[in-house]
Amino acid sequence: MNTVNENSEAFIKARQAHLVKALKPHLPEHALLWEPEDTIPYECDGLAAYRQMPLAVALPENEAQAVEVIKVCKELQVPIVPRGAGTGLSGGAMPISQGLVLSLAKLKKIVHVDPIARTAVVQPGVRNLAISEAVAKHGLYYAPDPSSQIACSIGGNVSENSGGVHCLKYGLTLHNILKVRGILMSGEVVEFGSLAPDAPGLDLISILVGSEGMLAVITEVTVKLVPKPQLAQVIMASFDDVEKGGNAVAAIIAAGIIPAGLEMMDQAATRAVEEFVHAGYDINAAAILLCESDGTPEEVAEEIERMTAVLKNSGAIRLQVSQSEAERLKFWSGRKNAFPAAGRISADYYCMDGTIPRQHIATLLKRIQEMEKKYQLGCMNVFHAGDGNMHPLIMFNGADEAEWHRAEAFGSDILRTCVELGGTITGEHGVGIEKINEMCVQFSDSERELFWRVKAAFDPDKLLNPDKAIPTLNRCAEYGRMRVTGGVLPHPELERF
Amino acid sequence: MNTVNENSEAFIKARQAHLVKALKPHLPEHALLWEPEDTIPYECDGLAAYRQMPLAVALPENEAQAVEVIKVCKELQVPIVPRGAGTGLSGGAMPISQGLVLSLAKLKKIVHVDPIARTAVVQPGVRNLAISEAVAKHGLYYAPDPSSQIACSIGGNVSENSGGVHCLKYGLTLHNILKVRGILMSGEVVEFGSLAPDAPGLDLISILVGSEGMLAVITEVTVKLVPKPQLAQVIMASFDDVEKGGNAVAAIIAAGIIPAGLEMMDQAATRAVEEFVHAGYDINAAAILLCESDGTPEEVAEEIERMTAVLKNSGAIRLQVSQSEAERLKFWSGRKNAFPAAGRISADYYCMDGTIPRQHIATLLKRIQEMEKKYQLGCMNVFHAGDGNMHPLIMFNGADEAEWHRAEAFGSDILRTCVELGGTITGEHGVGIEKINEMCVQFSDSERELFWRVKAAFDPDKLLNPDKAIPTLNRCAEYGRMRVTGGVLPHPELERF
Repeated sequence: MNTVNENSEAFIKARQAHLVKALKPHLPEHALLWEPEDTIPYECDGLAAYRQMPLAVALPENEAQAVEVIKVCKELQVPIVPRGAGTGLSGGAMPISQGLVLSLAKLKKIVHVDPIARTAVVQPGVRNLAISEAVAKHGLYYAPDPSSQIACSIGGNVSENSGGVHCLKYGLTLHNILKVRGILMSGEVVEFGSLAPDAPGLDLISILVGSEGMLAVITEVTVKLVPKPQLAQVIMASFDDVEKGGNAVAAIIAAGIIPAGLEMMDQAATRAVEEFVHAGYDINAAAILLCESDGTPEEVAEEIERMTAVLKNSGAIRLQVSQSEAERLKFWSGRKNAFPAAGRISADYYCMDGTIPRQHIATLLKRIQEMEKKYQLGCMNVFHAGDGNMHPLIMFNGADEAEWHRAEAFGSDILRTCVELGGTITGEHGVGIEKINEMCVQFSDSERELFWRVKAAFDPDKLLNPDKAIPTLNRCAEYGRMRVTGGVLPHPELERF
Repeated sequence: MNTVNENSEAFIKARQAHLVKALKPHLPEHALLWEPEDTIPYECDGLAAYRQMPLAVALPENEAQAVEVIKVCKELQVPIVPRGAGTGLSGGAMPISQGLVLSLAKLKKIVHVDPIARTAVVQPGVRNLAISEAVAKHGLYYAPDPSSQIACSIGGNVSENSGGVHCLKYGLTLHNILKVRGILMSGEVVEFGSLAPDAPGLDLISILVGSEGMLAVITEVTVKLVPKPQLAQVIMASFDDVEKGGNAVAAIIAAGIIPAGLEMMDQAATRAVEEFVHAGYDINAAAILLCESDGTPEEVAEEIERMTAVLKNSGAIRLQVSQSEAERLKFWSGRKNAFPAAGRISADYYCMDGTIPRQHIATLLKRIQEMEKKYQLGCMNVFHAGDGNMHPLIMFNGADEAEWHRAEAFGSDILRTCVELGGTITGEHGVGIEKINEMCVQFSDSERELFWRVKAAFDPDKLLNPDKAIPTLNRCAEYGRMRVTGGVLPHPELERF
């Protein structure tokens, strides 16, 4: 590339001045930031352990301005990191030192709601929950509900293929959107998907969803809306053994029931939460399950009855069914506040996002217990059990560098165990910078090279969110020369501390 | 490319000899065909109006042989047309004169069934219905049910993202598979998807599904299985007006009901079918709807009651609910035999596959009635109404060339109308060679070019099923210089006769 020292302060200053000058004619004055006091809020996303200051931050107010910003960056070969609400947990929106952060926060119009077709056309900066609020008067809502739904934006949800408590029944982001409009790095505006159930041509909407800002800058999303159920009730079930709880999850699904939510928390989690929100959790249980049913009153009554029978057969020692909407929300309040509760009892916590076939939940939980001893760190487990999407929260003290390294190694060990059990290294938080090494474990050289070639089809100069999500062959070669063959790791114990 | 006359008989003979010689060491003797009497069964697929003899046909018996065939073709730069059961309706498996047909018919093992995880690993040549038959003993089945399910293979289903009567509730092929293994044109074997609900990296399984054999040769598919419902019942509802029938479909969905099947037939279709299979259809009705409910007896009873109320409100003049499994199958027998019934009353018929937002069904049906006059050809309508996936059957006499050209123009007019109504040119049959011109209407130059770039990421030499599914920019330029802007066609009347 360049032979000058690209990391020298003088070089960066010059590049910044050049970029700012080129962008200024295309943006309102307040929509371009480059002074450190203005850009510092953008130095990280929800994965605050990794930080980097960008050259500048652009906040276009419409698609046309975003197109101009992209054209300038292409001309100057400045990499772009697109950013939604910055709530991502894998560092996907962490800036690049020589790059621009392109925030879509000001594209926040709900363009159109069609209550008959049950669709809404929204700009990427619209908050997830704001969609449901806007369509509530029609008796509708947008189903995927990440824990961050108050703050996270639909553009970010599309980029990460976000899930949530209700995605077991209602699907991930991919299953709840119809069209995506975006800008390619060439400045061209493209649109994929359709209002009909399938579209001809290659299914590019599916690779845009979950592409972590690497393929296009999203400027409009058409989402599906679903009718609010007449009734929802939740069963809270206690188990004296995490294995029994894990097996109960598999048994519910095996009985042909798809609950509206099926979440599990271990004792470390219920205790931390109960102290904080008083949700009425059984803190003597080794694990609790929250099993929600929604639909007509008849459907709910029947499903609650069937789930109760399965839970009893699976060894539940205590069962409680919410008797009012207030009680249902109280039961959920603990689950929804598990992350802040972890923050109260530990200086720092590191949230993993591995996903496994649900029949292996009990196995993974036991392996995590062994790892707690090995890495000398506590871990609480709170997760989308029905999906097999685990969120182990590893507790550590970030001020102690050795503890942070142990936490990283612990997390990596969990993810490699997920792959070994036939699962994946991320359920809904994305790869970002956090799990980029584990991508070497999940995919073969040929498969990763194909990712790169598809990336290049959209963005030949590799300017859109480079160095995220897909590791280079070199990086993987350095990462322990490990390879997965038939799901079996030849070196399951990769020591990093 | 080449300066010799590539279409001369001598050139083709020489190329054939060269290819056969190179392939012979890698295949059993009976697995390589090149004499015209052996290859003629492969000259077309289900779209028999288009035919072409290939250089040769290879029928590998395992993945390793398929890899060798692909490597030879890459070295000789011979294009490959992958073929499943040959039941496709858009000419996707039609040979290329200078190419090899790679049949996956002999890869027909059911490799593994896991009744607990509810998955089956199958080779691509396994018939759709054979999967359900093999897992019936576990009370499970594979949900997508194209009309051709007796004959069509899972590899073809994946390549076309096939649908069926039950896909409204259970999803298309894409929603019912977990992993796909395939061979790239480089000879590399790759695997995408996972047993967990989401996978990291680009969602390449989604673009493999429906890619019409252009990206990889599929060698293994992991499908989801679902429990057989305890009960299924179907309502047959008569309407004195197609518009009322179309609106009833939208009303059922608007009421928050997702029937297990929601099919519509117009009078031309019911009359043709009734004469043939005596399904008990109301041949005096302008249109009939078949609305199926499945689940537990309680769920079915409640849903049948709710659908009955909506149908009555929508102006149904006669309602009949199946009272036994035999009666349910009888009601469906007419729908399932609509295509052969059309074959009985017309020398030839041309099946279209446009898909529209379901609130526009009545509009499209009226437009088709006008087109029947314009093109002086009859059309019967049989379709997956719940999905808005229309299957107009244009009736014509293939011996009369003028009639065939009118039928083609009629079909093209329907597809362009689908795009105008916010829909797409194909629901489940693929683009193939049939709808390649209409791809110019559906997508912009930038969008089509992106398809080509993604295609090149998988297959840089464009050897896998070239000239199918994605038109070149030149072809689109020739195709009437038409462009879609915001769903509106500047030249809705493209006269081709």
